[in-house]
Amino acid sequence: MILIPVTRCRPSHARVRRRAGFTMTTAADAQELFRRAQAVCFDVDSTVIREEGIDELAKFCGVGDAVTEMTRSAMGGSVSFHTALSERLSIIKCSREQVNKLLTDHPPQLTPGIRELVERLHQRSVKVFLISGGFRCIVEHVASQLHIPLHHVYANRLKFYFNGEYAGFDESQPTARSGGKGTVIRMLKEQYGFENVVMVGDGATDLEACPPASAFIGFGGNVVRQQVKEKCSWYVTSFGELLKELEKI
Amino acid sequence: MILIPVTRCRPSHARVRRRAGFTMTTAADAQELFRRAQAVCFDVDSTVIREEGIDELAKFCGVGDAVTEMTRSAMGGSVSFHTALSERLSIIKCSREQVNKLLTDHPPQLTPGIRELVERLHQRSVKVFLISGGFRCIVEHVASQLHIPLHHVYANRLKFYFNGEYAGFDESQPTARSGGKGTVIRMLKEQYGFENVVMVGDGATDLEACPPASAFIGFGGNVVRQQVKEKCSWYVTSFGELLKELEKI
Ligand SMILES: [Mg+2]
Ligand SMILES: [Mg+2]
Repeated sequence: MILIPVTRCRPSHARVRRRAGFTMTTAADAQELFRRAQAVCFDVDSTVIREEGIDELAKFCGVGDAVTEMTRSAMGGSVSFHTALSERLSIIKCSREQVNKLLTDHPPQLTPGIRELVERLHQRSVKVFLISGGFRCIVEHVASQLHIPLHHVYANRLKFYFNGEYAGFDESQPTARSGGKGTVIRMLKEQYGFENVVMVGDGATDLEACPPASAFIGFGGNVVRQQVKEKCSWYVTSFGELLKELEKI
Repeated sequence: MILIPVTRCRPSHARVRRRAGFTMTTAADAQELFRRAQAVCFDVDSTVIREEGIDELAKFCGVGDAVTEMTRSAMGGSVSFHTALSERLSIIKCSREQVNKLLTDHPPQLTPGIRELVERLHQRSVKVFLISGGFRCIVEHVASQLHIPLHHVYANRLKFYFNGEYAGFDESQPTARSGGKGTVIRMLKEQYGFENVVMVGDGATDLEACPPASAFIGFGGNVVRQQVKEKCSWYVTSFGELLKELEKI
């Protein structure tokens, strides 16, 4: 099979169809792109880890309900990613000490199979990146466990005053904005010369990163987002399925 | 003598003269206002402490010369306080760890006599405030030594990422802008209902805070700024002089 240099993000219930420049891809296309990927980018919350980092942080800081409520209303409305993040953080106002304690007392739980999958990708010299709308201090913790170098981590950076009080977040990070994951992938393609980058994630912001990602794999192992499931060409519910796919070549 | 409710910041080589609404004050006026002050606000760098905090930090971070050069060129030009601060910090980029180590290895040196002066003011129930264009993390250290409550400290706040890297400063603090010390004094007068607030400092930004300060006392115990010396009505070179003044009533 000859690879056609187009992105394979959209679903097909049959096979590749091209109509008016619109390319429908099959699961088989996405699978082939995944097997041949130069880089695989994983979303973190509800993908690489079982939970949503910001919800855990909110719960830990005693404002879980308020933040859950805000997440719900933000999802329905027209609030930008940046505003939603900013508003939730202004309720959480986590101190450096609280983040430290969260990491010690309730470290993020890796999703079963991710350790083996990343190890296998590394063995095959595939670059692995974590791209998260969550917080770098939490995602770095996850990266270390998976032996992913810290410069392969793209996430939002919390700021603290000298006394540890919450002081905002780095608003200039691409991951702080809508479409940020796509921005990161575009950057990676330029920086490393990747032609085939696959994105794996559970959410709408992950799906939207394809294109520029060559393919998107929907992950439903922790939570199933119906819209994502319907719109993606390949949907899996365990990392075992991805590992199995890699055994094919 | 009846106190006239005007500010006493400008010099006179003779006595109080009033011309076209412009009030010239004598050292005697400033002294009386000082003896009757409800609150005394001290500048910190080169006043309460011997050195300039930002220069010490720059030296400690190995960029002393570059920052001194920048300070010199900023002083001559039309660079705003905010820009000058921001640019110097973007060279220093001190980590949380470096600030910590500076405080441990080279704690700020109190100017002789300040401890006794603040103690005496506190005994007289005069409120003492520190208003600094320097950094809160350093000024709080000074405040503790002088038993000044931390909510009486107004200074700029450095920000750090979770890993301790420099992450900017709180741009919303009044002390981050030109005229900021005056803004703080206006706030204090409103908040506490003070009518007589005296400002003590070595620099032009201290002199400019009067008004709203009722009187300004120039301090030349660490460094003499000729312009400040010439423009103020009462100039001292040791805190002993202020202490002695308080003994008069
Ligand atoms: Mg997710
Ligand atoms: Mg000064």
